[in-house]
Amino acid sequence: MAFADEYDAMRRALALAATPGVPLHPNPRVGCVLMAPDGTVVGEGHHCGAGTPHAEVDALEAAGDAARGATAVVTLEPCNHTGRTGPCAQALIDAGVRRVVVAQRDPNPVARGGLEALAAAGIDVDAGLLAEDAVALNPAWTFAHENGRPFVTWKLATTLDGRSAASDGSSQWISSAAARRDVHVLRALSDTVLVGTNTVEIDDPRLTARDETGADLPTQPLRVVMGNRDLPESRRIFDDSAETVQLRTHDPLDALRTLYADHDRQHVFFEGGPKLAAAFLKAGAVDEVVAYLAPTLLGGGKSVVGRLGIRNIDAALRFDLVDTLVLMPESEDGVEELINLRLTLRPRQATTATATDAKDD
Amino acid sequence: MAFADEYDAMRRALALAATPGVPLHPNPRVGCVLMAPDGTVVGEGHHCGAGTPHAEVDALEAAGDAARGATAVVTLEPCNHTGRTGPCAQALIDAGVRRVVVAQRDPNPVARGGLEALAAAGIDVDAGLLAEDAVALNPAWTFAHENGRPFVTWKLATTLDGRSAASDGSSQWISSAAARRDVHVLRALSDTVLVGTNTVEIDDPRLTARDETGADLPTQPLRVVMGNRDLPESRRIFDDSAETVQLRTHDPLDALRTLYADHDRQHVFFEGGPKLAAAFLKAGAVDEVVAYLAPTLLGGGKSVVGRLGIRNIDAALRFDLVDTLVLMPESEDGVEELINLRLTLRPRQATTATATDAKDD
Repeated sequence: MAFADEYDAMRRALALAATPGVPLHPNPRVGCVLMAPDGTVVGEGHHCGAGTPHAEVDALEAAGDAARGATAVVTLEPCNHTGRTGPCAQALIDAGVRRVVVAQRDPNPVARGGLEALAAAGIDVDAGLLAEDAVALNPAWTFAHENGRPFVTWKLATTLDGRSAASDGSSQWISSAAARRDVHVLRALSDTVLVGTNTVEIDDPRLTARDETGADLPTQPLRVVMGNRDLPESRRIFDDSAETVQLRTHDPLDALRTLYADHDRQHVFFEGGPKLAAAFLKAGAVDEVVAYLAPTLLGGGKSVVGRLGIRNIDAALRFDLVDTLVLMPESEDGVEELINLRLTLRPRQATTATATDAKDD
Repeated sequence: MAFADEYDAMRRALALAATPGVPLHPNPRVGCVLMAPDGTVVGEGHHCGAGTPHAEVDALEAAGDAARGATAVVTLEPCNHTGRTGPCAQALIDAGVRRVVVAQRDPNPVARGGLEALAAAGIDVDAGLLAEDAVALNPAWTFAHENGRPFVTWKLATTLDGRSAASDGSSQWISSAAARRDVHVLRALSDTVLVGTNTVEIDDPRLTARDETGADLPTQPLRVVMGNRDLPESRRIFDDSAETVQLRTHDPLDALRTLYADHDRQHVFFEGGPKLAAAFLKAGAVDEVVAYLAPTLLGGGKSVVGRLGIRNIDAALRFDLVDTLVLMPESEDGVEELINLRLTLRPRQATTATATDAKDD
């Protein structure tokens, strides 16, 4: 295999990084191509998960002596620290690589500095080629390292009139079975599921990620309960089906920083109740909303989000709709369920719409 | 033109009935094909609007003497009364038609009886062929005559958390400009727009159907305000851009029966507030919901629907989602709006909420 230019090589490195089946957490997807000056590929590699060789080392091993004088094309800046493996920047220097082209600069404060180390060793370096594609490989990982806290997806289930429970407190089930199954898919794609003490007391959820048969999946997100209240050990969140942590704080950002710094968490799937959801929204700690909308009306009951302190329509929290999924009903026990919708929203950056006074109804 | 059988002729009659550009209200779309015994088409016709010849008469005129001995294939049972035109049943008898095949039986109590009149005159009659397709041509007309009241579409605009206004009462604008324009299209497809006195007092809407430039369309639905309260003449609903009626009742079914019986109304576009919407829902008088969903959160303010007296989640009013439309934002004055969704729902069952005094946070 040979490439005409570094752009083509980077596209190959991105494809290698995206190899399916790689267990990621807490590491990013990375791909690397080693290319001789004539464009011939002398080695390829990708990262296969925590504790295994990084992509660059994988590619260097494949190339052997042919790495000398080659150009390394990597989707992520080579690391400059010794974790479970040695620093990749040093490995590239030792192998006699002539030039290193990276897509994304490393946002991880403890690993960055690779390009500087390479440049100091006299290696030609370049960064930014197809960087957006590289970021898209590891959105939560990138977000977490850039912001010092995990990316937060707020999951909510609501009626058309914004209720999460009826006036007697009953909430099972607002959503259809298809919607509830979809929640398990999204839990499994996160590394953390978070609720408040109130949800644990009232709903007593297990918060595991389960397959279509209801069995726990082999890999489980960390279960986190936030709040100062002491909870009985008998609550299902404390069973042995997954790890559980209680964070004794009411401050969303405090909790999130702890999850990043002490628990290496990058993506929180937040399933808290209205009051905690309002606290997260007010703290600017909701990065994505996944709303399961049931086409039902209650005309009363518990609101899906607590008080936000918003008085005027112009101050409404605004979101961009990025995805709509129609969840077709399943017919269980002869009862045909309602079609539910899943809406995915991202906060619109604080552009308050100018209130025009034109009255027109 | 010749048809192999009556099925093909009826499909042609349905197509004739659906001829675009026919101003309907208060009449139904009807198509008619007159076919000689060998299948040759000797006349075709369709109804072109109130005061013009009915489809059968239109076809008979085209056929002339060739109508004698022919089979009339009509999408709707020929009328048996003299309105602005004479009874079609009699016209078919007079023309010497041998057989009449109709799709839909006439649900209009004052016009029905055509098939019986034809049979009494010794004409061979048959009904039901492609009847569902014929009903689909005139859904609101059919509904109104079958139920003695207009079909009701409830239009609402809501945030993701089910709010129609902020806590200071501000509600302009919950929806995007694209959503508000779409409302005018739906108003124009109805023959009546209905609100309560409260909406007239608070929002003072004009309730006309307008085009994209904001100009009133040439044909306007009847504007109806419901409630006993006296309203100032200066309210915009009373301007001269369309007819307006005040119905002095709080009972949705009472108002709807009056609109059917006294005003020949078949399709009400209901734009009332939360309290009146709750009354319509409790009366089982919402046949369709068109919900404009803005991806925003208020965390307080006015609910989109008032108390329904529902205490338990199992008693939630349930709807089938029949359509989802993504309303792409328009960029006006450099401000890019949010994507809104339009959801169209139909009640799952005739659910009448039990009117108990539910406690509601």
